[in-house]
Amino acid sequence: MSDASSAILPALDPMAVPGITGETDYPKIFQAGMTGATRRRLGDAAGLKNFGVNLTTLPPGNASALRHWHTKQDEFVYVISGEVVLVTDRGEQVLTAGMAAGFPAGVPDGHHLINRSGQDATFLEIGDRSAGDDGDYPDIDMVWRWVGRGQADVYLHRDGTPY
Amino acid sequence: MSDASSAILPALDPMAVPGITGETDYPKIFQAGMTGATRRRLGDAAGLKNFGVNLTTLPPGNASALRHWHTKQDEFVYVISGEVVLVTDRGEQVLTAGMAAGFPAGVPDGHHLINRSGQDATFLEIGDRSAGDDGDYPDIDMVWRWVGRGQADVYLHRDGTPY
Repeated sequence: MSDASSAILPALDPMAVPGITGETDYPKIFQAGMTGATRRRLGDAAGLKNFGVNLTTLPPGNASALRHWHTKQDEFVYVISGEVVLVTDRGEQVLTAGMAAGFPAGVPDGHHLINRSGQDATFLEIGDRSAGDDGDYPDIDMVWRWVGRGQADVYLHRDGTPY
Repeated sequence: MSDASSAILPALDPMAVPGITGETDYPKIFQAGMTGATRRRLGDAAGLKNFGVNLTTLPPGNASALRHWHTKQDEFVYVISGEVVLVTDRGEQVLTAGMAAGFPAGVPDGHHLINRSGQDATFLEIGDRSAGDDGDYPDIDMVWRWVGRGQADVYLHRDGTPY
């Protein structure tokens, strides 16, 4: 039973969860560097509904997301291997294996992770699914607005016109 | 900035977060083996409200909790180092570093982690804070009932009498 590949739910071997690469619904003009991450949706694989847990592999030259913040949903990351650069209003901080960062809902300080190293980095990304979550991309002319549970957020210019 | 100890929020060095050892509100008769864990409340340290993230160190001979399940709150664990035994209705599974387990709310399958090895084990414990969360300890004559946000749960016998 100590062989990870023999894990049965509620246990799971994260590497046995299919990885999804290149998934983004950002407008095309903002997709550069945003499609390299591979995400293994561990929380979904375990049947969780209240929050998501992804094991994400970020290759060199890619970012986890556009720099953003959430109005209702908390986020947390924990670095498993490699190193990433965390960018926030505080500037840049290098996060190595065993380091973490947390982003409380409603704090208007955008964040994202960039891999500027020469090797893949892996980290856990955790976020809850509180309803009514809007968000903002402070570096660009874009916000997102909650539409409804199970529906894709909509991306808007700051003047309210859609992308 | 690559020195973990220099991390500033929203980044954090988990080992710089104070660990809390021996904390349990279980009735005295159920506390054996339950007071060895040291928990670093990373989510709280980052200011998160919607879910908790603990980095927990479990010494040999200790358990993470009494075997239990939640009616409203999801839980997830990811093993960072060492090994633990996950006990559920499925039996026992050994979880080593890099393995995970998830426990969806409302699934009446109790779970806990026991360290039967000779070394400390460390893992991340994640749980949300959905209101109205009750729970059950299937191996013993005990349940817990939600009282209110910010208030300690109450422990009852199955016939409703308090401990």
